[in-house]
Amino acid sequence: MISLEISARTAAGGRTGILRTPHGEIRTPAFMPVGTYGTVRGLTSDQIETCGADILLANSYHLALRPGAETINKLGGLHRFMGWRRPILTDSGGYQLFSLSDQVRIDENGAVFRSHYDGSPFELTPERAAEIQRLLGVDIGMVFDALTGLPDDREEAASAAARTVRWAKRTCEHVPVSDQTSMFAIMQGGLFDDLRAENAQALIELDFPGYAVGGLSVGEDPDKTMSTAETSVRLLPENKPRYMMGMGTPQDLIRLSGWGYDMFDCVMPTRNARNGTLFTRRGRISIRNSRHAEDTSPVDERCNCFTCENHSRGYLHHLAKRGEMLAATLGSIHNVSFYQDLMNEIRGALAEDRYETMSSEFLAEFCSEPEE
Amino acid sequence: MISLEISARTAAGGRTGILRTPHGEIRTPAFMPVGTYGTVRGLTSDQIETCGADILLANSYHLALRPGAETINKLGGLHRFMGWRRPILTDSGGYQLFSLSDQVRIDENGAVFRSHYDGSPFELTPERAAEIQRLLGVDIGMVFDALTGLPDDREEAASAAARTVRWAKRTCEHVPVSDQTSMFAIMQGGLFDDLRAENAQALIELDFPGYAVGGLSVGEDPDKTMSTAETSVRLLPENKPRYMMGMGTPQDLIRLSGWGYDMFDCVMPTRNARNGTLFTRRGRISIRNSRHAEDTSPVDERCNCFTCENHSRGYLHHLAKRGEMLAATLGSIHNVSFYQDLMNEIRGALAEDRYETMSSEFLAEFCSEPEE
Repeated sequence: MISLEISARTAAGGRTGILRTPHGEIRTPAFMPVGTYGTVRGLTSDQIETCGADILLANSYHLALRPGAETINKLGGLHRFMGWRRPILTDSGGYQLFSLSDQVRIDENGAVFRSHYDGSPFELTPERAAEIQRLLGVDIGMVFDALTGLPDDREEAASAAARTVRWAKRTCEHVPVSDQTSMFAIMQGGLFDDLRAENAQALIELDFPGYAVGGLSVGEDPDKTMSTAETSVRLLPENKPRYMMGMGTPQDLIRLSGWGYDMFDCVMPTRNARNGTLFTRRGRISIRNSRHAEDTSPVDERCNCFTCENHSRGYLHHLAKRGEMLAATLGSIHNVSFYQDLMNEIRGALAEDRYETMSSEFLAEFCSEPEE
Repeated sequence: MISLEISARTAAGGRTGILRTPHGEIRTPAFMPVGTYGTVRGLTSDQIETCGADILLANSYHLALRPGAETINKLGGLHRFMGWRRPILTDSGGYQLFSLSDQVRIDENGAVFRSHYDGSPFELTPERAAEIQRLLGVDIGMVFDALTGLPDDREEAASAAARTVRWAKRTCEHVPVSDQTSMFAIMQGGLFDDLRAENAQALIELDFPGYAVGGLSVGEDPDKTMSTAETSVRLLPENKPRYMMGMGTPQDLIRLSGWGYDMFDCVMPTRNARNGTLFTRRGRISIRNSRHAEDTSPVDERCNCFTCENHSRGYLHHLAKRGEMLAATLGSIHNVSFYQDLMNEIRGALAEDRYETMSSEFLAEFCSEPEE
């Protein structure tokens, strides 16, 4: 079971605190590095820990396809499998199956599809999604939800939201309350405030230990994403963790934390690192750019990560140009550390009631130079 | 400058001791992990250190092509570039240019070729090879040597050996004695004991701080490789380090250490790791083999490396099947640690005069099971 202890709140709704889980405490708001297939690409478990992450995210759908939930269970659960001692949250696969919708048949019972590894048939239902996450033994699992790719089509959005509630109810009925895996519900409702409110209300009645906001950033106008994100967080219980799924530019993390979201995940820090895009306080740089070739300075002078303490931009440029694995590893160490440092700053600012100042100073500097 | 202090010798010529260099002490016999392009593939500098390596090898020819010796010099030298505090040895490129001989023109002056990156013209001479290695600031550099692909053709072998001596002499005349980069000469002479003896004598007269045996394992009968290796080591000075280039199965390391070689390098532990081949005390295993899929045991029960302490064969199998970068990293940590553990055992056995027992016990177990 989990519990959230909020230690400070701002007038605008931002808050900071501690989320307690079976595998330890998470300082909130928290950013979760993404380890979809049971590995945060290119990082060992001790490197992830050193970057400052309290929790990471994996995907139960991908892991159920390979190596299989029962296999991970036999190997001692996902924590032992990954060699990761701290909390883990898994997504359920709702979003992934929606992204592959032309190869998946989804009806009221759940989704039927074929494994992309060997073509074997596979079924995912709310019950099975919860079962998989229990087999993995994660601290937090996500209910299997229904999405729409047309969040501004009222009928589509309402229908997906209603099915999400029915699936959440089936999940509740299926999962024992004493379970060590706490299931979070995912709010849907497209870009319609009234549908979001209705959906939130129905999910809150089911009394989940935490709530996520889903169905955003699926191609809609970014202004609508942000206004819906702001409305949505206010519809969720004050005393429970609130998780914004899949959004995570530094700007997003700052804004969403200010509104009261407690948890985030995004592939950006690790995927960018593999492409040679590194974060600095003055914005993102492309380490492949030849202007870094003879630069003795670290990626970011103010960063204390292993990469910045030990290597020059010139070295990272060399590795990236050669396509060396170490370029991805050192870049990921830096980017994940950058994200965790940012969350630390956000938490400090929320705790000391100087969020507005911190936010505007960070953004002014971060956006001060044109991106390469 | 460097100095070798031998603390124990066996009747068969094996010895153990300490080789002191500007960047610290190397316990001998020593195995050097290979970081050709300024990175031991997939490993951070602290991971290499944790594996127990006292020294690593890079290639000055490859680094001179990219990013360039002058660039690395501007970035503070190869140690700072790689974030590696311990000793470094660089090879000169003689072997690499010989391997690419159809694209390279080699005459008495040196080699002329085009960069495989951008086609720009490039010249490597004994003087320039030494200059490059001084620019890199390595502890030990190798003279630019001449090889033959026909080590059992007497005329070819004699001609390459004679040129190697002339090039070694030019290197001596070019390199200041007080230099922090100690140059090792490379003995040639093909598979002919008398040519080896003659070549060794000529190189010894030039009084290098260390000597390597080159020109072996280029396609000849393995029995001849080993008999020439055994003859060659006895031709080299007792009081100076003796390095066998490029040979390094576990069996090789044991035999060659027993004859008195002090240094080794080989891509095998890291290249094998990237292919999913991992070393155990009972032989090599292929981690991709499905029999490891649900195996909760570590790669090797008796290994204390990060990989074996934290992960099951089942996890490594999953990563390798998915082609995850972490498979290569965790595999390389294990294989490099396995090699360093083996060198530790060899050193201990040489020091305590139980080399024969250690050697036969290790080999009996290592070869006990058929390889996968």
